[in-house]
Amino acid sequence: MDNTTGTRPTFVSHLECSLQGDHYPADQVHGLSKAGKPLLVRYDLKALSKSISKEVLAKRPTDLWRYREFLPVRRAEHIVSLGEITTPLIRAHKLETGGGTLLIKDEGRLPTGSFKARGICVAVSMAKALGITRIAMPTNGNAGAALAAYASRAEIESTIFCPDDTPEINVREIAAQGAKVWRVNGLINDCGKIIAENKDAQNWYDFSTLKEPYRIEGKKTMGLELAEQLGWRLPSVIFYPTGGGTGLIGMWKVFKELETMGWIAGPLPRMVAVQASGCAPIVRAFEAGAEYAELWKNAHTVAAGIRVPVAIGDFLILRALRESNGFATAVDDESIEAALMEMATREGLLLCPEGAATYAAYQQELAAGRISADDTTVLFNCATGLKYSLPAVTRRLDRENPIF
Amino acid sequence: MDNTTGTRPTFVSHLECSLQGDHYPADQVHGLSKAGKPLLVRYDLKALSKSISKEVLAKRPTDLWRYREFLPVRRAEHIVSLGEITTPLIRAHKLETGGGTLLIKDEGRLPTGSFKARGICVAVSMAKALGITRIAMPTNGNAGAALAAYASRAEIESTIFCPDDTPEINVREIAAQGAKVWRVNGLINDCGKIIAENKDAQNWYDFSTLKEPYRIEGKKTMGLELAEQLGWRLPSVIFYPTGGGTGLIGMWKVFKELETMGWIAGPLPRMVAVQASGCAPIVRAFEAGAEYAELWKNAHTVAAGIRVPVAIGDFLILRALRESNGFATAVDDESIEAALMEMATREGLLLCPEGAATYAAYQQELAAGRISADDTTVLFNCATGLKYSLPAVTRRLDRENPIF
Repeated sequence: MDNTTGTRPTFVSHLECSLQGDHYPADQVHGLSKAGKPLLVRYDLKALSKSISKEVLAKRPTDLWRYREFLPVRRAEHIVSLGEITTPLIRAHKLETGGGTLLIKDEGRLPTGSFKARGICVAVSMAKALGITRIAMPTNGNAGAALAAYASRAEIESTIFCPDDTPEINVREIAAQGAKVWRVNGLINDCGKIIAENKDAQNWYDFSTLKEPYRIEGKKTMGLELAEQLGWRLPSVIFYPTGGGTGLIGMWKVFKELETMGWIAGPLPRMVAVQASGCAPIVRAFEAGAEYAELWKNAHTVAAGIRVPVAIGDFLILRALRESNGFATAVDDESIEAALMEMATREGLLLCPEGAATYAAYQQELAAGRISADDTTVLFNCATGLKYSLPAVTRRLDRENPIF
Repeated sequence: MDNTTGTRPTFVSHLECSLQGDHYPADQVHGLSKAGKPLLVRYDLKALSKSISKEVLAKRPTDLWRYREFLPVRRAEHIVSLGEITTPLIRAHKLETGGGTLLIKDEGRLPTGSFKARGICVAVSMAKALGITRIAMPTNGNAGAALAAYASRAEIESTIFCPDDTPEINVREIAAQGAKVWRVNGLINDCGKIIAENKDAQNWYDFSTLKEPYRIEGKKTMGLELAEQLGWRLPSVIFYPTGGGTGLIGMWKVFKELETMGWIAGPLPRMVAVQASGCAPIVRAFEAGAEYAELWKNAHTVAAGIRVPVAIGDFLILRALRESNGFATAVDDESIEAALMEMATREGLLLCPEGAATYAAYQQELAAGRISADDTTVLFNCATGLKYSLPAVTRRLDRENPIF
């Protein structure tokens, strides 16, 4: 039952700047590197390899903490857990796949109903280990809910800023779980600015995407789970809804770690960043051959989680796409809603709009010939569909379901 | 990944009337018994015992279907699955427990966000096996969402009736997943009457609680998981939010099956039925020493899932409480809301109101001395808290979170 408490060795050697490669010591509080870029956690992969085997791993409880050796939390008593179970990988059995295999990884089963729990539980555990008492974070909704829950459990104070059009259900969830939540007249980057300007005065640790080094380590467990669930053979393509991109960067990081360790063989998956056509800075940069992405003006989409006009990890996302022979692609709101309704009514899976965007993109790329019958494709549904209220559902309700 | 498809033997011998014990053949469509009571599925437990061991079980994927031998679905191709992962058992670490151990089993992680998925996935699989094409069901929300999703996946038509004050989020969820949903001016028993009156003309298979025999088999997996998660030692007390009572009956059934097989030893848990003081027919019957429970008039509570004025399995619930040396207890809405907020802000767990009712009851019974320092108590949180909108959350939001 208390799956998390086993004392296991950890193998962090140091942190390093994702742009310039300079080193930073482990076990200290860090934000961005001196170059203002995200820090990546590095491990002694040789020692890690020797310490566990796939067979030992297979016998452990099926939660995120089974991968302790791949994570930065050194001491079991610092683990802050709300039950991060392995999420299921569900096969689509009625949708058009052109002869290929289509799997949906349903991240809505995690605590607080989204994949944000992965990053936040590891980051809050590290914050606890490092003695942090106050955390602030900008959010489009799900990350804030996860921080509120984990911080409350850890007895850390959390202050959360979200755009003022964040749906009531998200704001309520954040408040219910003990955070202070502020609605900001702006987008997520505007929320981030408020934290940057006030963090010294408020003694806040800044939990913005990639501004602390550990959320990415939590998110990389998506890649570990995927590899293990598929018998240490990776899928050929991964469609990932991309806002800040932590999960895409994290998965690519761990695939390289596993490759170095010799745990996986063969080509790594093509990584596909899915964005909304109303906010597609990564797609624009990818297609322009640029190393960085410029701020997207007037960002708008029903998929609020990927309404991220500017991402500090832009170059890491773009690198992963190119290294993996993948690509970036955008879909419009209409196709997101249609994809959501098709998946719900035909497969019984109520995706979030961001998850539905990956299916819309899959359909688009299948038609364009970038996905073939040989492909095993994984779509990431990053959150439960329950938190969203799409017009398409209202129309179906009004049309087909009169009051008795 | 496709954890469900293994071909495994099953051991159903027959079905039997839960009141009179007369037998009915397996593998045929059944509703209630001739006496108008629920049918229970019986197994050849000796053959079942010989076919698997705890060690073999431990190596299987951690989902509901690992317990295939304990379930009635004979052929793998009839399994309708949306990824029914083992739900986590989370230890409360800050709440007052009088020195005892308090664990929360978070059923909100199942498909469609509630424990209803367990019963419905097994029942829909059996419906598919038996060639059923149309299903109707009354619901207070969560069961309807589960039926909509599984029926859509199985290509079975589903028609769902819910009270007209069912929250919009539930009605939308049901509609989004492909069911026809009707709002009825009445309570869940009134919805059930509409189905009873129209099922022959509409060719509906009636999926009302305990009116088909297989939901209870799905629900009993809560007991199997609990036993296995605790190393085949059961907790001393289980608090269960009780409306129709399928889960309580199912857990008690499987505990007896496991006891017969010699898989568990020692005293079985005290089973505690938790109801709302505005709808407590089982509590009233238990305290009166009655065998059946009378209809509760003017039923009302914020915990809609336990707003069930009359339960066809009333005598089975009452039997389980008495055989287990347990009891029934009621809590008012105010204490449910307070319990919900305490659990959310202190433990980081956003329970549904029905789940919160079990914690309110636990506090009450701890104070009353019915729970002691020796007890390991499990509370069932039957659904994600995201689907609910409690006044207490609004008050917290208004008080503590002004607009920036």
